[in-house]
Amino acid sequence: MTVPDSPVRIRPIRPSDYRSVISVIDDWWGGRHMADMLPRLFFEHFTDTSFAAERDGELAGFLVGFRSQSRPGEAYIHFVGVNPGERGHGLGRQLYECFFEAARAGGCDRVRAVTSPVNRGSVAFHQRMGFDIEPGEAGPDGIAVAAGYDGEGQDRVRFVRRLAGDVP
Amino acid sequence: MTVPDSPVRIRPIRPSDYRSVISVIDDWWGGRHMADMLPRLFFEHFTDTSFAAERDGELAGFLVGFRSQSRPGEAYIHFVGVNPGERGHGLGRQLYECFFEAARAGGCDRVRAVTSPVNRGSVAFHQRMGFDIEPGEAGPDGIAVAAGYDGEGQDRVRFVRRLAGDVP
Repeated sequence: MTVPDSPVRIRPIRPSDYRSVISVIDDWWGGRHMADMLPRLFFEHFTDTSFAAERDGELAGFLVGFRSQSRPGEAYIHFVGVNPGERGHGLGRQLYECFFEAARAGGCDRVRAVTSPVNRGSVAFHQRMGFDIEPGEAGPDGIAVAAGYDGEGQDRVRFVRRLAGDVP
Repeated sequence: MTVPDSPVRIRPIRPSDYRSVISVIDDWWGGRHMADMLPRLFFEHFTDTSFAAERDGELAGFLVGFRSQSRPGEAYIHFVGVNPGERGHGLGRQLYECFFEAARAGGCDRVRAVTSPVNRGSVAFHQRMGFDIEPGEAGPDGIAVAAGYDGEGQDRVRFVRRLAGDVP
């Protein structure tokens, strides 16, 4: 596909983004019901570490993350979505880099995230973005997982990425 | 019903509480699927403002809340559950009071929460706990609601309670 000429603009997320995100995410996830995983509270209370990407006023992607409240120095990426028509052009990377910068500015030296071991694309993306996989039990293809991390049968790959040493 | 003699103990929530909470909440909510609303992140990153209540080693209730990251001075109660067999004995009040104390200790002067306008018990509970209802459109019984706050057709009553002036 061709990418439109108008640029993507990434900005802090706002409460008013909640409706636009909720109205598209089930589609972006191929029909899976995702809205419950993204309560409005993230659009109200974590706007300094969460971002919306727009192209021509349309939502191109978003990232919801926060600084851990009870683990000083740690930040966490909860949810990232990219419009299917915008995939493959580095927008996920740009959103993560915005988050890294915000986390670093907020005093964090590491970022954590989790994903499902069956989501090979996500595992590979996190590795390209500099995340290490945390030790765990042997999962599919020998990837280390935390068994039952997100509930019965819901194994997760846990990632951690150091921020120290990056060029700010 | 009679209340057992052994006391309820309220303590900070821990990552290991995630599985016990997830295994009971659908039952506590009368079969509604609630688990997606309570991702594990709250049990990992907000343990200083979230609490578990136990009686005889069994989960009696829990509260998940946090200090707003992007609204200094504000705290938010996301999710509270009380075992049906423990209801009516003040455990909800005790959990809220623990949260108020933690919020105040963390420098907050106000607490927010939302509930569905059809949940009259929750509306009355918040009013007893000193919350005011924020202005909005007229909902059921004239209660002010934010229309569509949690998505299409999902009106919410928004509460705010000042912490300043309480005896610490």
